[in-house]
Amino acid sequence: MFVLLKEGVTESEVRGVLDSAEALGVSEASVTRAGKRTMVRVKGGAAEQAVRYERLAGVERVLPSDAPYVLAARATQGCSTEVAVGRALFGGTRVEFIGGPCAVETESQLRTAAEAVAKAGARMLRGGAFKPRTSPYAFQGLGERGLELLRKVADEFELAVVTEVMAPEQAVLVAQYADMLQIGSRSVQNFPLLEAAARTGKPVLLKRGMMSELDEFLASAEYILARGNQQVVLCERGVRSFDKHTRNLLDVMAVPLLKGLTHLPVVVDPSHATGRSELVAPAAYAAVAAGADGLIVEVHDEPEKALSDGRQALRCAEFQALVQTARAIATAIGRCV
Amino acid sequence: MFVLLKEGVTESEVRGVLDSAEALGVSEASVTRAGKRTMVRVKGGAAEQAVRYERLAGVERVLPSDAPYVLAARATQGCSTEVAVGRALFGGTRVEFIGGPCAVETESQLRTAAEAVAKAGARMLRGGAFKPRTSPYAFQGLGERGLELLRKVADEFELAVVTEVMAPEQAVLVAQYADMLQIGSRSVQNFPLLEAAARTGKPVLLKRGMMSELDEFLASAEYILARGNQQVVLCERGVRSFDKHTRNLLDVMAVPLLKGLTHLPVVVDPSHATGRSELVAPAAYAAVAAGADGLIVEVHDEPEKALSDGRQALRCAEFQALVQTARAIATAIGRCV
Amino acid sequence: MFVLLKEGVTESEVRGVLDSAEALGVSEASVTRAGKRTMVRVKGGAAEQAVRYERLAGVERVLPSDAPYVLAARATQGCSTEVAVGRALFGGTRVEFIGGPCAVETESQLRTAAEAVAKAGARMLRGGAFKPRTSPYAFQGLGERGLELLRKVADEFELAVVTEVMAPEQAVLVAQYADMLQIGSRSVQNFPLLEAAARTGKPVLLKRGMMSELDEFLASAEYILARGNQQVVLCERGVRSFDKHTRNLLDVMAVPLLKGLTHLPVVVDPSHATGRSELVAPAAYAAVAAGADGLIVEVHDEPEKALSDGRQALRCAEFQALVQTARAIATAIGRCV
Amino acid sequence: MFVLLKEGVTESEVRGVLDSAEALGVSEASVTRAGKRTMVRVKGGAAEQAVRYERLAGVERVLPSDAPYVLAARATQGCSTEVAVGRALFGGTRVEFIGGPCAVETESQLRTAAEAVAKAGARMLRGGAFKPRTSPYAFQGLGERGLELLRKVADEFELAVVTEVMAPEQAVLVAQYADMLQIGSRSVQNFPLLEAAARTGKPVLLKRGMMSELDEFLASAEYILARGNQQVVLCERGVRSFDKHTRNLLDVMAVPLLKGLTHLPVVVDPSHATGRSELVAPAAYAAVAAGADGLIVEVHDEPEKALSDGRQALRCAEFQALVQTARAIATAIGRCV
Repeated sequence: MFVLLKEGVTESEVRGVLDSAEALGVSEASVTRAGKRTMVRVKGGAAEQAVRYERLAGVERVLPSDAPYVLAARATQGCSTEVAVGRALFGGTRVEFIGGPCAVETESQLRTAAEAVAKAGARMLRGGAFKPRTSPYAFQGLGERGLELLRKVADEFELAVVTEVMAPEQAVLVAQYADMLQIGSRSVQNFPLLEAAARTGKPVLLKRGMMSELDEFLASAEYILARGNQQVVLCERGVRSFDKHTRNLLDVMAVPLLKGLTHLPVVVDPSHATGRSELVAPAAYAAVAAGADGLIVEVHDEPEKALSDGRQALRCAEFQALVQTARAIATAIGRCV
Repeated sequence: MFVLLKEGVTESEVRGVLDSAEALGVSEASVTRAGKRTMVRVKGGAAEQAVRYERLAGVERVLPSDAPYVLAARATQGCSTEVAVGRALFGGTRVEFIGGPCAVETESQLRTAAEAVAKAGARMLRGGAFKPRTSPYAFQGLGERGLELLRKVADEFELAVVTEVMAPEQAVLVAQYADMLQIGSRSVQNFPLLEAAARTGKPVLLKRGMMSELDEFLASAEYILARGNQQVVLCERGVRSFDKHTRNLLDVMAVPLLKGLTHLPVVVDPSHATGRSELVAPAAYAAVAAGADGLIVEVHDEPEKALSDGRQALRCAEFQALVQTARAIATAIGRCV
Repeated sequence: MFVLLKEGVTESEVRGVLDSAEALGVSEASVTRAGKRTMVRVKGGAAEQAVRYERLAGVERVLPSDAPYVLAARATQGCSTEVAVGRALFGGTRVEFIGGPCAVETESQLRTAAEAVAKAGARMLRGGAFKPRTSPYAFQGLGERGLELLRKVADEFELAVVTEVMAPEQAVLVAQYADMLQIGSRSVQNFPLLEAAARTGKPVLLKRGMMSELDEFLASAEYILARGNQQVVLCERGVRSFDKHTRNLLDVMAVPLLKGLTHLPVVVDPSHATGRSELVAPAAYAAVAAGADGLIVEVHDEPEKALSDGRQALRCAEFQALVQTARAIATAIGRCV
Repeated sequence: MFVLLKEGVTESEVRGVLDSAEALGVSEASVTRAGKRTMVRVKGGAAEQAVRYERLAGVERVLPSDAPYVLAARATQGCSTEVAVGRALFGGTRVEFIGGPCAVETESQLRTAAEAVAKAGARMLRGGAFKPRTSPYAFQGLGERGLELLRKVADEFELAVVTEVMAPEQAVLVAQYADMLQIGSRSVQNFPLLEAAARTGKPVLLKRGMMSELDEFLASAEYILARGNQQVVLCERGVRSFDKHTRNLLDVMAVPLLKGLTHLPVVVDPSHATGRSELVAPAAYAAVAAGADGLIVEVHDEPEKALSDGRQALRCAEFQALVQTARAIATAIGRCV
């Protein structure tokens, strides 16, 4: 059973809930804090005891123990969560743009992309230093050298940095350089990694798995929230399909569905969702039209020479045009830009 | 092998191709005409003979015999096909709207919806008279009485009518009342039905199957084109998925993909694609942002009393708001409205 | 609401149920007979009235009006349905084998296959005369000439014939030649066709669609049962998947699942389920091990020359070996052979 | 480019290949050893240079640099790989059985299961000490205490132990207790974990992801082989589907497909593949009939009290019956037992 406490609950009210749990003879009771919200998790009590907790001071409501997620649920929190990363703010009325190469390759490649990204009005730079690759023989990224370049170049253009972390033991290192940690789609149920990322205290960009049901995706977000880190941005990036014209199938309706289920911001990655550069713009426009809080787009000055995913990267000028049209669509559905 | 002839090819040039085929000893050669385009299909010739045909007068190019579709291919025709239905024109710069109830139930229900649809600026009325239903015990539609009502009410508001045909032997009857025949998603590979619909000469709205690969979908369209009927509008309506939050998964990227593969117009059905009224507007906006030539939307004055699919129908006022915002998005991506 | 009557219910008991329905003021009540079972379908009554019907003479139980299928449900009937076709009997302890070419091409091709099929111990011959093909340019079958050949050759070897019917208006014709009508996977929700096949009174082999959920599949079977034809055999033939190593993904667990949900026999088509001849035997063995009541297998004396689906056809000797091993597996799980 | 060397290649032959690579001016050349096989991976050379390597002493053949997997490919190795774990041997003619609880809960629970497993003739014990759970609030396993119990109880019955490792930093710890490390389906593309498991030198049971294409699955196995650990057993455990009657869809044909693509042994997990205890036996039988080298089955003395996955666990007696019938099927297809 999850006893959700009111915002601004006092320590003595929390104590009161724990005391009641003990009096009711439950096998375990523990306190979780995420953002402004406190929750007491009670194990072993009978379902009928819910009403006993609901009457206590400071208690907002009680949820059943088989709820797949609690802290991530829209109902848990009155308003939408806003996640600030540098000058970017996800979950407000503005659509935020993140751009940059799939992988950091060289300083000049990164600078060219970063300059274009900043000029287009984006506030964040993406780029992979640790790259999860299907084949053990594919380019695996520059590692820490890539992180250094990301930090250096991003600072030149006042951009915040998001980059992927692949293993729990990398989390602290990546957090030293990045403003936001990305959990890739292959890691969406890498629970030790989710916890390690949460513990850094940095905002987390959590990508949906190729086959995550929305409830599972939110349960993965719950792993981060349950460790006290409320700064989570969800990212739809395409699901696996039976048609092979595209690498993945963009599930654009995941955006309004997720926004109904959770208070967390939702962005879309039109590059991975399509895998083909000529489809990135229509995918990005569809995402914004469906209500996405932001876009994360692969940008490369010479896609044909990219060491990974060149097929889906936009050239700098294409990215700038995309941002412009996406903003016009945002205006059409009533967002500010 | 498919020998595609130039627009404006003369009868003697067609004759020349047939004569060459005979001289080359093929087992069969037949002529197909679709719109302005003529094609000679040659069976039994060796692949190397292609170059022989390409040199003949009037020949544009030769395609291999295993192409899944020929007449429907974008490469076959320089420009996009425009399909006119009453005052509506699919495939031009305008986004067209089709609205109306899932099923025709009563004259007054239909009139209320039609009036709202016309007032919102839509030029076509939809409504089912023959309803394909998963259960044999569900409401199966009013049949011919439904067709009569559709015609009568549509005429009052100067709307064109599109309605589903379920069996080959119904095609002539439905064509007497409707301006456009709809082939439902369950019938996308009902080949005798595709041919019967083609033979009526009426424009056809062909819905994608729940699991059609795009090549299969276009091969179904080819069945209609190969019978000499070029007036085909394709409709994406959601595919089956592993996540059950929605009835189907809107494959919004099918729109730009199809527009790259074929010259036929592409519209989207956001009602069936989502199955939930609160998701119809975001789905519709995403579709227009991705380049759809039109939308077909279920509208009902009292969705809670609908005999079928009430869960996904928009109220009249909601439809009008949808059209307005969809047009603003169309403008943002450079279409006229 | 569905009022299911006991086997051997009398006419006056049926009358009693209808009278009660009228007295309760329902909007409509109709009688359906399928096999030994009679059902009264009541529209418009309140759910609480169920108990009133349950007390009447001759009533077995009452099912809610939103059940996707009733007559097809396992609970409706104590025992499994046995479907006899010629000397074959589906649904008993024996595993039945159906073999033959994808399409009837020539008399000698058919005779060679039929002879091998009979020699292997199969009791039924398959072969397509009307072929549903993705492309309008592919071989569409010999039509009535194919039916004549099937009948003639099958009779020579005392085999029963199953062949596909594609359109409602073909049903009577096909029923003149065949012992069992096949509804193909693309037609699983071609409701007018299901009804036309049911009306012929012949046994029906109903193939699952590439994407049929089991409830939908059984609702399609219900269309046939509700027209009074109880002779339905279900066929699993692979579903669509994200991996393209095979044409379809054999859902072998559909066999025990269906046998738990319905009283109808279930067979498997390992040829279409895999699309590759070297996988047909393992698929067939898995199907029998999982409890299938029979197998329908494509057999061709010269697969490399087949006009359709040669890639998945077994040679005659391969089919005979398959039957032998499949029977050994049937014995291992306790079936007689 | 991958230069595959012959078995028994000499050091001077390896040196010869590296020298040639240097002479040809490639940017990098490295040596990988897996089992009896040595491979030189050459980066940066032109495709035409392949022929140069093929002529060198000790070279078997050269593969292109975009092959998704090399060491795992069937063509790389003449015979099937056999993986020995305790008294069990995967990849030979015998079908091996692994049984045990989903999670280790108590010593007595584990002992009861182990005893039944041993009595049934299985040679390996399974049981989770570190449990990946969708929800952060679900039982996460006993950790090292669970490993201790597994080792102790397995030794009592002369069983080998396989248990899951979830994070790279756990690999050494788990390898101290277990005879085989399991990589769960959620970790199939957790590349740092694959490498950490490989480095322990222990045999690895690699589960297919819910949505792994077979090429991706084998590329994950390649990560382990490329670190010099050839002891990999693949495990099919169901893929995600559109039908929700079962937790997953058993892709039984993955067994013969994988056995054609790779030389590694393939087993099946009928418990996770179905999620329902009444379906475990048919799934197991289908797997053996399709050619599986083994089965891994959840066994619990009191499934209704299990802390996880009780719905899919077999009782001890059910497991014994399953082994018996599975062996009869193995005999029917010509395996020894």
